[in-house]
Amino acid sequence: MQPFTQITSESVGALGEEQLIREIRRWLGSASPRAPFGIGDDCAVLPGSRGPQLITVDPVIYGRHFDATVPARAVGAKLLKRNLSDLAAMGGQPTAGVLALTLDQTVCTRWLEGFYRGLAACARQYHVPIVGGDIAQAPGVLAASLTLLGRATAKRFLTRIGARIGDHIFVTGELGGSLGSGHHHRFVPRLVEGAWLTRQADVRAMMDVSDGLAKDVHALTPKQAWPALLPDAIPRRARVGLRGALTDGEDYELVFAVAAHVRSELFLRKWRRTFPRTRLSLIGSFLRTGQSGGGTIDLSHYHGYEHLR
Amino acid sequence: MQPFTQITSESVGALGEEQLIREIRRWLGSASPRAPFGIGDDCAVLPGSRGPQLITVDPVIYGRHFDATVPARAVGAKLLKRNLSDLAAMGGQPTAGVLALTLDQTVCTRWLEGFYRGLAACARQYHVPIVGGDIAQAPGVLAASLTLLGRATAKRFLTRIGARIGDHIFVTGELGGSLGSGHHHRFVPRLVEGAWLTRQADVRAMMDVSDGLAKDVHALTPKQAWPALLPDAIPRRARVGLRGALTDGEDYELVFAVAAHVRSELFLRKWRRTFPRTRLSLIGSFLRTGQSGGGTIDLSHYHGYEHLR
Repeated sequence: MQPFTQITSESVGALGEEQLIREIRRWLGSASPRAPFGIGDDCAVLPGSRGPQLITVDPVIYGRHFDATVPARAVGAKLLKRNLSDLAAMGGQPTAGVLALTLDQTVCTRWLEGFYRGLAACARQYHVPIVGGDIAQAPGVLAASLTLLGRATAKRFLTRIGARIGDHIFVTGELGGSLGSGHHHRFVPRLVEGAWLTRQADVRAMMDVSDGLAKDVHALTPKQAWPALLPDAIPRRARVGLRGALTDGEDYELVFAVAAHVRSELFLRKWRRTFPRTRLSLIGSFLRTGQSGGGTIDLSHYHGYEHLR
Repeated sequence: MQPFTQITSESVGALGEEQLIREIRRWLGSASPRAPFGIGDDCAVLPGSRGPQLITVDPVIYGRHFDATVPARAVGAKLLKRNLSDLAAMGGQPTAGVLALTLDQTVCTRWLEGFYRGLAACARQYHVPIVGGDIAQAPGVLAASLTLLGRATAKRFLTRIGARIGDHIFVTGELGGSLGSGHHHRFVPRLVEGAWLTRQADVRAMMDVSDGLAKDVHALTPKQAWPALLPDAIPRRARVGLRGALTDGEDYELVFAVAAHVRSELFLRKWRRTFPRTRLSLIGSFLRTGQSGGGTIDLSHYHGYEHLR
């Protein structure tokens, strides 16, 4: 569905802001608590948090993260799931979200309803109240930015820092071809897996793969080391080549480092018992700089998604 | 300064995302803690919060909230101060912020440096760490959305709900002419005043005036009542008429209701002792629907800033 309309009466401009906010509250329904705990005051009031919290922000922008071929409901769900994937990557659970919407006045009201209803359905599924937001107008734009708060599910968070030379590198699911396959909006954020991995003491560092493994894995790589990845071990989506798997982006899978002393077959067996339907692949290990790894991928030939280029 | 450039080498597109993020961290300096407590991981880790928290989100958009006549540093400061004004309206103090930036690749790097340095200076002044963010590209756009977290400064928050029939209506500062006078980016958010008002038991409801008093005051008005405002009592900025004071928007002042039994002269005297340099005006009271108020303003003739129109 085309998000923009040339029929004035079907556009958000015909509604005006106050009526639009009333509609948004209706579309969000039970996903949005009443003020002051939800939309309707200068701020939303959130409960306190005993332990540390997590915070992340990610947008969906028309022409960048979706186009007219993606259903409006799927765009709303994708916005939340992109942020959930960031929480999953540290082992967190969501607690609340706020949404900043920027739109042209020719955006179609029916499209926006689909977007909010898709967001609300996803928010209910993951028990995330949408507690606040803002609407602003800008010509030619349709963009929504969600800030998500979360809490720990274990005694620690996993970060990108912590891998050591020799550690195994694992990745969940399959990589590449996200856009063509619809994975970029149909994916399921790895919250359960991320929480479980955070409870495994031998998992040392983790992140989500969003700009392509070839780019993202560097953030996980310890100093004086390089990621030795085996081409045949990279899990590829059907009809996707190695380049696609390494560089396409929007995989929303978890890549993580497991201590070298762990026997990888045992780790894989434990995983399969816990997540029988989620593929896990041992794709390589971190080698000391200068140490040669025969048959591994020369990552300098692959570039992940570089924004602004 | 024009935020966009036609000289490719001076644009953010020439930097690319990774280099740009490095530059942003340098521009933010001490206003941005190290990962995982700041920029650089999938989420930022925040300390827990014993009491309830506040959350709000507001953007600045090129062509909407600023143009080339506003210095880049002032735009960065304005973004933070707009959100601080929302916290002030509930009596909160800021604890952390995250920033979502959407920009065209022709945005001038030097403009962006000014923007971030202005934001950072303001963040240091108000002790708000900027803990995370996101950068996304969209053609023709320059927009930044800040989500701000806060905490209580007293045992309660003030909300828009709570005023009763008969309550006095007060407003801080002067209204109108915000754009022409530069007030829209030079204003000081009323954090100290908001915190103090929250500790006064007789203050029953509060909000910030951002879309014009004529529009905003309705949100503060109890059911079966109307706001009886006296035209001569509305504090106007120099060279601003009544219409401007009621409808211009971007005032970032506090409007609040004080219990009817309080003697307004005594409240004003207490205010002047506490805030000798901040003007406070008694502008009217809430009357029962049907009750006539001679000489008061007919607000149906005034419309505040309606977005999307």
